Amino acid sequence: MHFTKMHGLGNDYLYVYGFPVDPEERSIKLSERHFGAGSDGMIYIMPSLKADFEMRIFNADGSEAMMCGNGIRCVGKYVYDKGYTKKKELDIDTKSGIKHLSLHTNAQNKVDLVTVDMGEREILDPALEAEGHTGTYVSMGNPHFVLFTEDAEAAPVDTLGPVLECAPQFPDRANIEFVQVVDEHTLRMRVWERGSGITMACGTGACASVAAAAAHHLVPMNERIEVKLDGGSLYISVSDSGAVEMTGPAAVVYEGETVE
Amino acid sequence: MHFTKMHGLGNDYLYVYGFPVDPEERSIKLSERHFGAGSDGMIYIMPSLKADFEMRIFNADGSEAMMCGNGIRCVGKYVYDKGYTKKKELDIDTKSGIKHLSLHTNAQNKVDLVTVDMGEREILDPALEAEGHTGTYVSMGNPHFVLFTEDAEAAPVDTLGPVLECAPQFPDRANIEFVQVVDEHTLRMRVWERGSGITMACGTGACASVAAAAAHHLVPMNERIEVKLDGGSLYISVSDSGAVEMTGPAAVVYEGETVE
Repeated sequence: MHFTKMHGLGNDYLYVYGFPVDPEERSIKLSERHFGAGSDGMIYIMPSLKADFEMRIFNADGSEAMMCGNGIRCVGKYVYDKGYTKKKELDIDTKSGIKHLSLHTNAQNKVDLVTVDMGEREILDPALEAEGHTGTYVSMGNPHFVLFTEDAEAAPVDTLGPVLECAPQFPDRANIEFVQVVDEHTLRMRVWERGSGITMACGTGACASVAAAAAHHLVPMNERIEVKLDGGSLYISVSDSGAVEMTGPAAVVYEGETVE
Repeated sequence: MHFTKMHGLGNDYLYVYGFPVDPEERSIKLSERHFGAGSDGMIYIMPSLKADFEMRIFNADGSEAMMCGNGIRCVGKYVYDKGYTKKKELDIDTKSGIKHLSLHTNAQNKVDLVTVDMGEREILDPALEAEGHTGTYVSMGNPHFVLFTEDAEAAPVDTLGPVLECAPQFPDRANIEFVQVVDEHTLRMRVWERGSGITMACGTGACASVAAAAAHHLVPMNERIEVKLDGGSLYISVSDSGAVEMTGPAAVVYEGETVE
């Protein structure tokens, strides 16, 4: 099977055009980092009757994921750079609905940045207390608890993250973001992802952080705010109505062919 | 650049025929598991005037390694399966001298097992005491301290390993093997590798363990002894004169082409 290893801020998947008979087993086997090719999972891209393309995401443990902000940017680069489409405005059908992409190309007509319509943010509670800490409880489809801090580098992500993830206030657990306001167009964020622990880049976490910062008037609405993550930067804007757009990079590492 | 990801018991490298201008930088970049292809390092295979082929190993941190038992088996599979040679008895020039390989092929004429001449073992001390533990101090070119235990699964590899690695008895530090004698032809081994920590498979550690067991008459000389590692099994024999042979698997995961 031919595949393409791509990453968005170090969130790496193996991308395949088509769909195999054994997506779960294949993802477990190929995603293993020493015995397989190594990845966070596999993303299958297909034609769609409802949108321009359909994507399905299988994690390294074989489970199917709903949506992935870093992954869908790479899907945009994949279909454009490989000539499956000439459109730069695309609708992608995902397990959590149809998402709109805007592709940005470089001088070689290759996609380098992709803007993703991330849907509406919902501020569930602007000042929720959990385990003695006050934060902003935000839904981006998935639950986030955003804590503002003076120094994100010193934040106890690995110790406080798992405690807050499972706090009784969050019936479905929560992703925990530690956010430092660098200036009114820049946030520094570190994240504890629900079920994954510390990760280099959480797209919905960056969106939730800007939504929380905008709700508290720490950053402006309707402008791109840079969120500096461990894996690189994302650029997020939140409209007056609460619609969120995320812009970020997508990169190809190699083209691969499995030996069956 | 074209490369082939292969592994021996999960010890995975990217194999390239030829030698680039920038082996250190390339290994650091391509070995990174999220932003690169992901591997323990890169191995370059070249023609040689002194042997059938030459191999050079660069670790994921860019440093050059002397020799790798799991890696050299894959070199044997690479040159035979890809048609660079029809010989099944090969000499490979490495940074620690010329090593002899014997290739074993399956019904499809592909190499599945490789026997490596690992040179002479040297029993430096059959009963050395370090940090209150008595073990066998063995050199396989690199230093090993072999501790026999009733239950390898319960051995404190992650806590005692780093203490013994740096014990004053080992001026160049040491690899620490925890070895359980299952029967007279089978050992179970877990390893703390010098500079790397717990690893799934250490070829020279398996050799040192059988050499130590043979020195204490726990296993016979001149016969293949199975060593069960976390990554799979190796088969080691030690001759009366102390010559060590290691037989183990080599596997291809995928063929890759980097996007420059």
